[in-house]
Amino acid sequence: MLTVEYRTDPARIAELLPEGFDLAPEDPGAVALIWADWQSCGDSFEEILDPVRAQYKECFAVVRCSWEDKTWSRCAYIWVDKDFALVRGHHQGYPKKLGSIWMTRPIMVGRAGPRLEPGGTFGATLAAADRRLAQAVLRLKEPVETPGFVNGHPMLHNRSWPAIESDGTDALDELVTMGGYDSEISDAWGGEAEVELFGSPSDELFLLQPLEIIGGYYHRVGVSWKGGTTLRRTFPLEVEG
Amino acid sequence: MLTVEYRTDPARIAELLPEGFDLAPEDPGAVALIWADWQSCGDSFEEILDPVRAQYKECFAVVRCSWEDKTWSRCAYIWVDKDFALVRGHHQGYPKKLGSIWMTRPIMVGRAGPRLEPGGTFGATLAAADRRLAQAVLRLKEPVETPGFVNGHPMLHNRSWPAIESDGTDALDELVTMGGYDSEISDAWGGEAEVELFGSPSDELFLLQPLEIIGGYYHRVGVSWKGGTTLRRTFPLEVEG
Amino acid sequence: MLTVEYRTDPARIAELLPEGFDLAPEDPGAVALIWADWQSCGDSFEEILDPVRAQYKECFAVVRCSWEDKTWSRCAYIWVDKDFALVRGHHQGYPKKLGSIWMTRPIMVGRAGPRLEPGGTFGATLAAADRRLAQAVLRLKEPVETPGFVNGHPMLHNRSWPAIESDGTDALDELVTMGGYDSEISDAWGGEAEVELFGSPSDELFLLQPLEIIGGYYHRVGVSWKGGTTLRRTFPLEVEG
Amino acid sequence: MLTVEYRTDPARIAELLPEGFDLAPEDPGAVALIWADWQSCGDSFEEILDPVRAQYKECFAVVRCSWEDKTWSRCAYIWVDKDFALVRGHHQGYPKKLGSIWMTRPIMVGRAGPRLEPGGTFGATLAAADRRLAQAVLRLKEPVETPGFVNGHPMLHNRSWPAIESDGTDALDELVTMGGYDSEISDAWGGEAEVELFGSPSDELFLLQPLEIIGGYYHRVGVSWKGGTTLRRTFPLEVEG
Repeated sequence: MLTVEYRTDPARIAELLPEGFDLAPEDPGAVALIWADWQSCGDSFEEILDPVRAQYKECFAVVRCSWEDKTWSRCAYIWVDKDFALVRGHHQGYPKKLGSIWMTRPIMVGRAGPRLEPGGTFGATLAAADRRLAQAVLRLKEPVETPGFVNGHPMLHNRSWPAIESDGTDALDELVTMGGYDSEISDAWGGEAEVELFGSPSDELFLLQPLEIIGGYYHRVGVSWKGGTTLRRTFPLEVEG
Repeated sequence: MLTVEYRTDPARIAELLPEGFDLAPEDPGAVALIWADWQSCGDSFEEILDPVRAQYKECFAVVRCSWEDKTWSRCAYIWVDKDFALVRGHHQGYPKKLGSIWMTRPIMVGRAGPRLEPGGTFGATLAAADRRLAQAVLRLKEPVETPGFVNGHPMLHNRSWPAIESDGTDALDELVTMGGYDSEISDAWGGEAEVELFGSPSDELFLLQPLEIIGGYYHRVGVSWKGGTTLRRTFPLEVEG
Repeated sequence: MLTVEYRTDPARIAELLPEGFDLAPEDPGAVALIWADWQSCGDSFEEILDPVRAQYKECFAVVRCSWEDKTWSRCAYIWVDKDFALVRGHHQGYPKKLGSIWMTRPIMVGRAGPRLEPGGTFGATLAAADRRLAQAVLRLKEPVETPGFVNGHPMLHNRSWPAIESDGTDALDELVTMGGYDSEISDAWGGEAEVELFGSPSDELFLLQPLEIIGGYYHRVGVSWKGGTTLRRTFPLEVEG
Repeated sequence: MLTVEYRTDPARIAELLPEGFDLAPEDPGAVALIWADWQSCGDSFEEILDPVRAQYKECFAVVRCSWEDKTWSRCAYIWVDKDFALVRGHHQGYPKKLGSIWMTRPIMVGRAGPRLEPGGTFGATLAAADRRLAQAVLRLKEPVETPGFVNGHPMLHNRSWPAIESDGTDALDELVTMGGYDSEISDAWGGEAEVELFGSPSDELFLLQPLEIIGGYYHRVGVSWKGGTTLRRTFPLEVEG
C-alpha cells in the first residue's frame, strides 16, 4: 500500500458528510489518498489458484469525521479494477467505481524499480473513464511505526438503498462500522510525497485539492474481514409488503 | 439486440426461483439468452458526447416464472462491460457482473459483415474471468413481428440487501417490477440459431444447458427508463436504530 | 468514421517528415484527425462470427506531404484497441500503438444518441496510458460529396526495420504506398467541429495543436485491402549472411 | 517468474522450426511454459514513476533447437498485456500477441496467498480473444540452483519482414540471437506442477500438449537488455530502390 496524507480545505470535507456528522476535532482537513494492490480470497482459498479472480488494485480517499463523540475514518471516493471487489465494496458501504490503478512495485533483484531503502522512489496513478484523475510520487526516507493516521480509526460508512421508484427516497439507510481481524503489517516506511489531482466531469476527487502535504508511506498489510456492525438502521419509507 | 430462445430442463429454472415462485404454466423451460449493445445517457444527454460513459454491452439470461397468478420475466444471470451499467443494474435488481461481450454488427457498406437480409449471419460471445461462457450464431430468415416471448413480460426481480454482519441475514428484501416507457423497436428479424454454454467455477450460466432451440432474433430497440414499482418490502431484521 | 480537419503550424508537420519529403504545396498545415469503428475479417470471413477478433476502433492523425512531385497522405500517429489491428498496421507502415477509442454512434430508434440529420451531435475521444489525448465534437449540417480532403491521396509510408543491434541503424528501410479496392462509401455528412488535444509524456499528438478548424465529417465506408506497392527499398547495412 | 517444463511430442516442435533447423539432440520434446510479471523501463527510468508504462505480464512457450552444431532456445508463442512490450518483442523476434495473463503472487503478511516455502502453491493462467488457453498449478518443494533448462540457451529467433505486396514473399529475413546482461536471480524454488492447454481457432499453443511433466519452478530475475546480434541476413527480393 502506498499512502499520501495531506491537508485540504476542511469545508470540502464537510460537504461530503451526511447530516449529523461533524469534522474531526483535530486536523479536520486531513485526507489520506491510498493505493493498494491486493490478493484476496474466500475461505476455500480457491481463487488463489485462479488469480484473475483474486488480484485487484484500488485507490481510495479517506477522510475523518466525528459522530457521537468519537472520531471515525470514512471512505469518500474509491476505485477498483475488478467487479468482485466492486460488489463486495458496495456491500461494505464503499462507493466503489471502476478505475485503472497502477503503482510502482519494490524490487529485490535487477534495476527496474526502487528497493525498500532510503531514496527508493515510487509512483502511483489513477484513471477512470479514460481520464487521469490522480498521480503521486513517494520518496522513502526511513522506517516508521505507523503508516499514517487518517485511515487509522474504525470506518464509519452509510449503506443506503435507494427505492426502485427513483423518486429520491431510500428504502433503507444504515450506518455501519467494520474492521478486519488477524491484521498483520510489515515493511512500513515513511518519506516525502507529492500528489496531483485532475478535473473530470464524472469524478469529484479533484475537489479535495491538497493545500499541504503531511507525509507519504509505504507498507505491506494482510487482513481478514468477516463482517461489520450495524450502528443504526432507518426505514424512511412505509412498509408496504 | 441478438436473442436466442431455447428450452432447458425446467428443474434448472425452478432451482433459481425464490420460495413462493412457481414455474411459468406454459413452456416452463424456456430461456432467452440476449446480447445487447447499448448507448445510454441521463436526462442531460451529456454522456452522449463522452461515449466512454454512454456505451456498454451486456449479455443476460431471462427465464419466466409465475407469482400471484401472473407470468413474469426474470433475469437469472447478467454480465455488462462498464461499471455505470453494473451499479445501475444492481439498483434495478439485476445480478450484474462484469464480462466481455461481443456481437457481430450488421453493415450497410462493404463486405465485412452481414446485412439485415435473409441469410445474414451473426455471432455473439460472452466471457468472464478469462473464460468463454457462451457463444451463439444466428442466421436471419425473415422479418418478424416480435423478437421472442421469454423477455416479453414485466420483469419481477428481488432486491436483497444482506446485513453487514455477514451472518446470512438480509436487512431488507424487496420484490420489484419495472418497465421502460417510450419504447421503440425496429428491424426485427427471426431466423435459425445455435448456442453453446461452457463451464466455469465462478459462473453458473452453463447450468441452463439448451435441450432444444426455439428460435433466434435480431432487433433494434430504444427505451427510456425512469423507475420501477415495489411490490413487496420485507424487513427480516429488528429495527435497531 | 468521424473526421475533424484543421490547420496546425506547418512547421510541426515538417518536423515529422523524413529527409527528402516536402510539405504539400497547398494548405501545408492541414491535418485530419479521424476516428473509426471497424469490423474486419480475412477471406474466410470466420472472424465475423467471433466478433472479438473482428471489431476494433482506431484514431489516427493524417497529414499530407510532397514527394517526387506528387502529393500524398501520410499517417503521423495512430492508436487502435486490438492487437490484430496493431500488428497488421505495423506491416502496412502505420506506427500503431494501443489506445482507448470511443465515438458516439448514430441511432435509428430511441433517444440516446444523435440521428444522421441536421443538428445531430457526435463526440469522440482518445486515451492512451491512462491519459486522455484527444476529444472532439461534431455537429452535422448537411450531406456532402466527400468527407474531407487530407486523407484523400494515396498513402505514403515508411516501413523501417531497426537492426537487432540497437545501434540506431536500420536493416531495411522501405517507402510504400497502398490502397484499398472495392471501396464503398455512404451517409457522408459535413458539419461544424471542435477538437482538443492534451499533453502526455509518451504521446506526441498534442504537438499538432489546431490553429483553425476546416470542418468535420461523418461517413460510413467499406473497403477491401489486399497489399501495397514498394516504391523504394534501401539496405543501409552490409549483407552479412 | 513461474515455469512449467514438460515433454510434448517432438514432431510438434519440428513442425515449428524453419528449414535448416533440427530438434535438440537431447530431450527434443522439452517445452518450457513461462509466466512472468515484469517491471521495465528505459535508461531514464521515467516509466518507473508512471507504472502503467512500466509493468506488464507475459506468458510464453520456449522450445529448443539445433542450428550449426549448437543448441538454442527459441520462443514458439508469446502473449503480453501491454503494447510497448508487444512492439519491443516484435523487434526482438518474439511473435507477441496480446493476452490476459495472471499469476499468483507470494505474500509476506496475511493469509491470502502462498509463501516461498515448501507446500506454497501458485496458479497461473493465460487467455486470448476471450478464451482461456492455458492454466498451471505449481506446488513448491525446495530451493533449487537453476529454474529449468529449456530457456537456458541463447535465444535464436527469426526476424522476417513480409513485403507490403502481400504475395507471400519476405523483403528481409534475419536470424538473430540476443541476451541480457547484469542478470540477477534470486529465490529459485522447484516443485511439482500441472498444466492444461485448451483449444482455440486463433491460437496454436494447444498443439504443444504435455505428455509428461518435467518440473515446475519459481524465481525472481532482473535483467538488462541492450541489443542482439544478427547471425544471418537474407534479402529474398530484388533491390528495387
